Amino acid sequence: MLSPHLSTVTGPVSISAVADHAGVSVATVSRVMNDQQGVRPKTRDKVLLSVAALGYRMNHLARNLRTAESRMLLTMVPDVGNPFYAQILRGIDTVAREHGYFVLLCDTGADEGRERSYFDLLRMHRADGAICLDPDTIQHALANEAATLPWVACCEFDPAMPVPYVGIDNRRAAADAVGHLLSRGHRRIGLINSDERYSYARQRQLGYMDALAGADLDARPQWRRTVQSLDYEAGAAAALEMMAQPDAPTAIFAVSDTLAIGVLSGLRQLGKRVPEDVAVIGFDDIAVAAQIDPGLSTVAQPMRALGETAARLLLQRLADPQIAVPGVLLDHQLVLRGST
Amino acid sequence: MLSPHLSTVTGPVSISAVADHAGVSVATVSRVMNDQQGVRPKTRDKVLLSVAALGYRMNHLARNLRTAESRMLLTMVPDVGNPFYAQILRGIDTVAREHGYFVLLCDTGADEGRERSYFDLLRMHRADGAICLDPDTIQHALANEAATLPWVACCEFDPAMPVPYVGIDNRRAAADAVGHLLSRGHRRIGLINSDERYSYARQRQLGYMDALAGADLDARPQWRRTVQSLDYEAGAAAALEMMAQPDAPTAIFAVSDTLAIGVLSGLRQLGKRVPEDVAVIGFDDIAVAAQIDPGLSTVAQPMRALGETAARLLLQRLADPQIAVPGVLLDHQLVLRGST
Repeated sequence: MLSPHLSTVTGPVSISAVADHAGVSVATVSRVMNDQQGVRPKTRDKVLLSVAALGYRMNHLARNLRTAESRMLLTMVPDVGNPFYAQILRGIDTVAREHGYFVLLCDTGADEGRERSYFDLLRMHRADGAICLDPDTIQHALANEAATLPWVACCEFDPAMPVPYVGIDNRRAAADAVGHLLSRGHRRIGLINSDERYSYARQRQLGYMDALAGADLDARPQWRRTVQSLDYEAGAAAALEMMAQPDAPTAIFAVSDTLAIGVLSGLRQLGKRVPEDVAVIGFDDIAVAAQIDPGLSTVAQPMRALGETAARLLLQRLADPQIAVPGVLLDHQLVLRGST
Repeated sequence: MLSPHLSTVTGPVSISAVADHAGVSVATVSRVMNDQQGVRPKTRDKVLLSVAALGYRMNHLARNLRTAESRMLLTMVPDVGNPFYAQILRGIDTVAREHGYFVLLCDTGADEGRERSYFDLLRMHRADGAICLDPDTIQHALANEAATLPWVACCEFDPAMPVPYVGIDNRRAAADAVGHLLSRGHRRIGLINSDERYSYARQRQLGYMDALAGADLDARPQWRRTVQSLDYEAGAAAALEMMAQPDAPTAIFAVSDTLAIGVLSGLRQLGKRVPEDVAVIGFDDIAVAAQIDPGLSTVAQPMRALGETAARLLLQRLADPQIAVPGVLLDHQLVLRGST
């Protein structure tokens, strides 16, 4: 209903007036205004000067779909500080640039108000589409506009929402991680989880429960901790708390590598050896997981492919707003290193 | 010369027509169009619907400076994957949001062409200003437009450019790092440096030389390595190469923590103990530097303050394009941990 088709009013200064003023062709002005390649810097400067002198404005709302594009895609992430998102962003950026789009990253802090502000850029046609990695609880609030605002969900998603998505099977992946700890003989397994606004946190808790139930083990609440941020310190603090109990776990599954690396640091403070005293497995396979000592066992997400797929889904959606864009699940992979 | 003052042409649909259509005040329409607070979601939706129905467009080039603002600031970084930038971004974002601006992050890959594309968003008034962390060799190409395009330099800068900047004294900071290694008795000190498009790389090499010269030591070329990326693997590979030589260094200064963590990993592969066989010092003090074992000694940059200051300089520049915005140097700090 906010489609660019609605309006046909044109501006008072025509594109051909700009072309005449600058002494170039209309096609050249169009190329400049649409940020396309193949215009020499000198020519572009001349065009932009004429644009300014004449007050020419592109008619953002009246242009047809193709030329109305801002050529900007937004990517909304809850925390640019988490290295997990960096590889995903690279994937998004690669595909977007191949198709002549800019990617702009929005650090939302998983805050619904900030999320809405960035979505306003879509509403006002200052960006063409968005890829959202924020909690699915926030996504729900925006799903009712999915028909008019082109966005796709990445990593966080709810298959019941009318929004294209890409992610992994978080429940099965978590069960695989805990299954690996069980196969190493552990029976007291702790879970350090993100807050439950995230569907991945809820799914991974279910997977943890599945694996324990499959081994006929109780899932004791005192072996579960929820953290409000995924930073290293949060992981260390949760590990210290968890290990202070009688009957403390002999293995810990943390739902992000940043938390797991913090757990390793917390265990070191307690003088616990990894993996001899306590085994640790993380999630994501961020670059530093392979660098530390001991190396961190983890569930690898195909981060680059997640980003590339999200960008492709969004481009499909932009090319044809009526198309039924599918949800896509990619494969995860257990990566075993010294920590287990 | 591309100042928004130049043109006074107004659009065919007035803001008051939109206000009438939506049944709200002109001030409310203005608030919505300028992404300002204090409009109820329902009202905002009504306004945006009227905007679409009537084809109203804000006159980006004709409006006065204050209302012509897009409320978007760009931050250009060479590699979103380096955790160093995450804290800086948080600082930028905090100050920008306090002043009602969106921050959009541009991952340039330190590529001049991509940098220019993003600067086109400034030229076309689709963003109000930019903070650039890309190599000063790229910045030079854009410095001649600094009078018309509001941007500031952060971390990378050349005091000779007519561009506001914030950073640290990289030469002195590097000399401090190497001075610390000298104080621990090391005489064969290796340098793993970034490529010399970066002024920080050139400055830190000078600081390394200063410190060696101050101790009457030769700076042997075979103890220096230049890497083309700052990722962990590059640091590990450089360390393996450097240690394969006869007369290998007993201490290594790497110009980023990511490289230094890679160096630790490379030394581990060689069976070298840190710091007993080889001491390692990094640069930046990214969060993970304190988590690993041994902890990484490093030169801490005030990352958050760098970002906050960059945003403040840019806001000053936007508030008064004629103002002489100063260059700012912030203090670094030596942080000593187990690796030295």
